[in-house]
Amino acid sequence: MTIKTLDELVEKVKNLPKRKIAVAAAQDPNTISSAARAVNDGIAEIIMLGDKKIIENECRKLDVDSTLFTIIDIKEQEAATKESVRMVRENEADVLMKGLVGTDKFLKAVLDKEKGLLPPKAIMSYVCAIEIPDYHKLLFVTDTAVLPYPNLDQKIAMTNYAVKMAHKFGIEKPKVALIGASEKVNENNQNSIDYAIICKMVQRGQIKNCIADGPLDIFCACDKESCKIKGISTPIDGDADILVFPNLEACNSFYKGLMLFGKGELAGLIQGTTKPVVVMSRSESEKSKYYCIALSCLMSS
Amino acid sequence: MTIKTLDELVEKVKNLPKRKIAVAAAQDPNTISSAARAVNDGIAEIIMLGDKKIIENECRKLDVDSTLFTIIDIKEQEAATKESVRMVRENEADVLMKGLVGTDKFLKAVLDKEKGLLPPKAIMSYVCAIEIPDYHKLLFVTDTAVLPYPNLDQKIAMTNYAVKMAHKFGIEKPKVALIGASEKVNENNQNSIDYAIICKMVQRGQIKNCIADGPLDIFCACDKESCKIKGISTPIDGDADILVFPNLEACNSFYKGLMLFGKGELAGLIQGTTKPVVVMSRSESEKSKYYCIALSCLMSS
Repeated sequence: MTIKTLDELVEKVKNLPKRKIAVAAAQDPNTISSAARAVNDGIAEIIMLGDKKIIENECRKLDVDSTLFTIIDIKEQEAATKESVRMVRENEADVLMKGLVGTDKFLKAVLDKEKGLLPPKAIMSYVCAIEIPDYHKLLFVTDTAVLPYPNLDQKIAMTNYAVKMAHKFGIEKPKVALIGASEKVNENNQNSIDYAIICKMVQRGQIKNCIADGPLDIFCACDKESCKIKGISTPIDGDADILVFPNLEACNSFYKGLMLFGKGELAGLIQGTTKPVVVMSRSESEKSKYYCIALSCLMSS
Repeated sequence: MTIKTLDELVEKVKNLPKRKIAVAAAQDPNTISSAARAVNDGIAEIIMLGDKKIIENECRKLDVDSTLFTIIDIKEQEAATKESVRMVRENEADVLMKGLVGTDKFLKAVLDKEKGLLPPKAIMSYVCAIEIPDYHKLLFVTDTAVLPYPNLDQKIAMTNYAVKMAHKFGIEKPKVALIGASEKVNENNQNSIDYAIICKMVQRGQIKNCIADGPLDIFCACDKESCKIKGISTPIDGDADILVFPNLEACNSFYKGLMLFGKGELAGLIQGTTKPVVVMSRSESEKSKYYCIALSCLMSS
């Protein structure tokens, strides 16, 4: 069955075996509430690695029962981070989650060639599933957070990651819109070139289990009427499941616009790692933070 | 008085002297309805240059009285376009508007060095005023349509054009957010470098009558709470009037997202020309098309 909303995602995950999440430097008020909800809803066990006293104190402040969590007392942030990465790497946990440690330090541990979670030559990227009241299904968008100006290899990886996520949501053959400012193919524009290659690769089965077209603008990707008005014939036809953006600023501005002005919620996850890695932005809503955890459990199942 | 909505823009323009708009290749069902409304509301006189028979026929189909317009019968699109540019250039009309002629051909006539409307060395760009229910005022965004990857000179021009437009709306010192995917200054990123230079130019008065900061993401530009949560101290502080984007795909995707999913309407105009030039996309709403005409009248006043 297809998961059509983020609440359906949560319901789905409730019926899956509980996952173990290791939180790196967990003395972080930003993540404690959503982690507690994950335990209370029975979707995850949470192992908090960090300063036990501070964790317990933050829990008290947020009126959260700290006994919900397994707490491993490691005061120093970097050491706590390394130990949580090790646990996930050695299958003592299923999902890694960032706590109070800075993103740079956190990713350094994740990307460590010998002790990290990224396979050699793997491309790290980020996919978000977005729910907005005015679209008839979830929209998977990439890359919201990691790759500034993706080259062809990176765009292919982004596409494959988003397709894989859409499959986990039960979408058998997701429609991938490769986003541009217009539909015009410009042979001098690297994005046009990359998009043409990706479309041909999809046609040849080198990128599997999806339908792709681009460049398409947001209107033609997400609004059937616009395709008609513009006279654009495309298998996407205003019904995209996945939007692959040509650069980080475009994807980031698009999704943040929908969060602020389109009543959007999201679930996002780092891609390319051997196990799901959750990095939640402080400025996301509580709901979105919880959805990120639920997504990590789905992807780890 | 400050114009806070696009309907207030229309009311303002109704009280200004009526402008003359020349429509190039006006046998265009896409523009006739909004042009008729402009005449009926008393904000503009419309001179339609094009195939008179087809214009009258299209009017009949749309149930529009063709005697509302002055029609100059020029069957050939390119000739009609050239003549409409000439009329605007020689002050026989105040505003130029694109009809059925292709954008490429239309812009070629506008950009013609001897007979066009762009001064030597002027930078052509595009600014939209966007109204969305979930923001407390209008948002001026640039560049939605013209400059793919603006360099520093082009970014400065974009900023100046948007500031000039905001002034016309009665905003004395508009707040300019220079948009990035995050707030982090990256000395290896050309946008970060350009933004730092623009901020310093604003401080020195080399770019006048505005407040600027960047890089800021959409959250910090448009949501005060996000600045607090992220600990970002900025004079923009979630209250931006103007968003300057680092590239066309980012601005284009952002505004189209708001049109589709944020219940947005817009008024947009080409910038840099000696007189306002209106190019309306077929896929804009009827309301937005009318607002574009109203904006051109304001900017020509």
